[in-house]
Amino acid sequence: MKELSELMDFRPSIKVVDATLRDGGLVNDFYFPEGFAKALYEANVKAGVDYMEFGYKADKEMFDVKKFGPSKFSDDDYIRSVVGENDTDLKIAVMADVGRCNYKADIQEKANSPVDLIRVATYLHQMPGALDMIEDAKKKGYEVSCNIMAISNSQESDLKVALDLLGKSSVDVIYIVDSYGALYPEQIARIADIYGEFAAKYNKKLGIHAHDNQKLAFANTIEAAGDGVDYLDATYASMGRGAGNCAMELLLGFLRNPKFKLYPVIKFIENHMNPLKESGVVWGYDLQYLMTGVFNQHPRTAIQFTKDKRKDFSAYYMEVTSQE
Amino acid sequence: MKELSELMDFRPSIKVVDATLRDGGLVNDFYFPEGFAKALYEANVKAGVDYMEFGYKADKEMFDVKKFGPSKFSDDDYIRSVVGENDTDLKIAVMADVGRCNYKADIQEKANSPVDLIRVATYLHQMPGALDMIEDAKKKGYEVSCNIMAISNSQESDLKVALDLLGKSSVDVIYIVDSYGALYPEQIARIADIYGEFAAKYNKKLGIHAHDNQKLAFANTIEAAGDGVDYLDATYASMGRGAGNCAMELLLGFLRNPKFKLYPVIKFIENHMNPLKESGVVWGYDLQYLMTGVFNQHPRTAIQFTKDKRKDFSAYYMEVTSQE
Repeated sequence: MKELSELMDFRPSIKVVDATLRDGGLVNDFYFPEGFAKALYEANVKAGVDYMEFGYKADKEMFDVKKFGPSKFSDDDYIRSVVGENDTDLKIAVMADVGRCNYKADIQEKANSPVDLIRVATYLHQMPGALDMIEDAKKKGYEVSCNIMAISNSQESDLKVALDLLGKSSVDVIYIVDSYGALYPEQIARIADIYGEFAAKYNKKLGIHAHDNQKLAFANTIEAAGDGVDYLDATYASMGRGAGNCAMELLLGFLRNPKFKLYPVIKFIENHMNPLKESGVVWGYDLQYLMTGVFNQHPRTAIQFTKDKRKDFSAYYMEVTSQE
Repeated sequence: MKELSELMDFRPSIKVVDATLRDGGLVNDFYFPEGFAKALYEANVKAGVDYMEFGYKADKEMFDVKKFGPSKFSDDDYIRSVVGENDTDLKIAVMADVGRCNYKADIQEKANSPVDLIRVATYLHQMPGALDMIEDAKKKGYEVSCNIMAISNSQESDLKVALDLLGKSSVDVIYIVDSYGALYPEQIARIADIYGEFAAKYNKKLGIHAHDNQKLAFANTIEAAGDGVDYLDATYASMGRGAGNCAMELLLGFLRNPKFKLYPVIKFIENHMNPLKESGVVWGYDLQYLMTGVFNQHPRTAIQFTKDKRKDFSAYYMEVTSQE
């Protein structure tokens, strides 16, 4: 049983990472309303959030800049247009996917960039690519984290090899990522234990990025926090792909560090997230995501179900289970 | 850390209690569409649910029968009109609130009733009333459970006195109830530990009834299940007062006893719960409930906020915190 002090007191090493523009951008092709990013930045500063993820560093050879909003590419100039010189305690993050980022050209030296943290996202089979990106970013002067995605479908022995490779790399933070929203808190505790062994051995920090397919994104995030995981991803109103993420408003309601403020989060949701939802942008927990979560599948068929505005959940159940 | 076997295997003593008509009825004054209760009963039978709660046994001197649907009063005749002689493994439950139930007159001998389980609901200060109802129901031949409500606002020492009184009574099951949706899984683990001491000493079973104010109803329910709690309340599509309850579809997706089937639950939600929601009946997690949960308050102001169709969440935040 965890210590009560974990709830009543706080661990200063816990960092909150706002992923709204990045994971949220996956549901609207990164087209946020005028002024949204700036207002979000200001809300994050007021709320005491530690990192704000601006989006992906997507390769412009692969993705048409005319078909996505600016957070798909997160150019330094775009970020500067929002944060200026960013004279705040809020750090700026961007995500770089292995195989979809021309990182040698598109990621500048840290000295010339408003970005603080490069978040490398990888599947297990792409580890050498991830390691090259990690060393590139580190050499340029950034903090670097690495998300190993889709671990609920991976072999524990493979995962341990990857964790050992990351341990030996320059990465600062290793993320537990429940891409399919398939994991229960008990499993998060066990996984945090495995990651924790490597973190202790190699002096790395840990993070968690959860999905809400089974309404467990927040529960899994605080479970991980209680297990020693320090970097906690969240999004306003849970905005994110499919079922969405751990809600910022739940997370800041839970954390006891007095630097965190709930009110600016509520205010931002009222003024920006709820209007976004009312404008027709769709995300969040629903039965189709529950099903891919329960059956530990990629949410892509559930996302299609949502796009098609289908309501025949029982027929979809048959489709999902026929893929088993 | 809990045993992996808790996830992979199952504990046959775990019982699932469907509370849709009772807790769900609180949001529509128990006016469910024609055929709803019967279809729900059939879904529960197919899904392997153990108990179906039909509603309250409300005192007709206190509540006008013309202002509520039949599940407010749960007359035996009404229940029989749905379940006939109930030749199934599904047991029938009703809830009786201390101070709002004319139990001596309105609860018949078990031999003449389709009801199996009487669920007594009490606040700590009403314990003598609860004990009288428990003994009355037990003498009439029923299984009896007792919900101690609003424990997140109670003193632990008072709670222990109540648990000792219940231990010495004829009650079969003692329920952990998070009325305000204020508790985190770590706290549930500690509370289950306290309840567990009394359960072991007096040979009682334990149950849990959770609310979804912080999207933790399911997480808290499976935390409790892992801590030895056997009776798990859930409602279809989380229907229940305010933020609602632990979702039946999440719970049956989690439990590994092969007698539980998810498909009939999905089917019922598609055919009955989603149309109910589309007809304008409102329940479920939202920011106003998060706030009463975080600040450990009764949800009544949040329910009023919902009824008034207010959207000024930041103003409501100021109202909630001014009550601290």
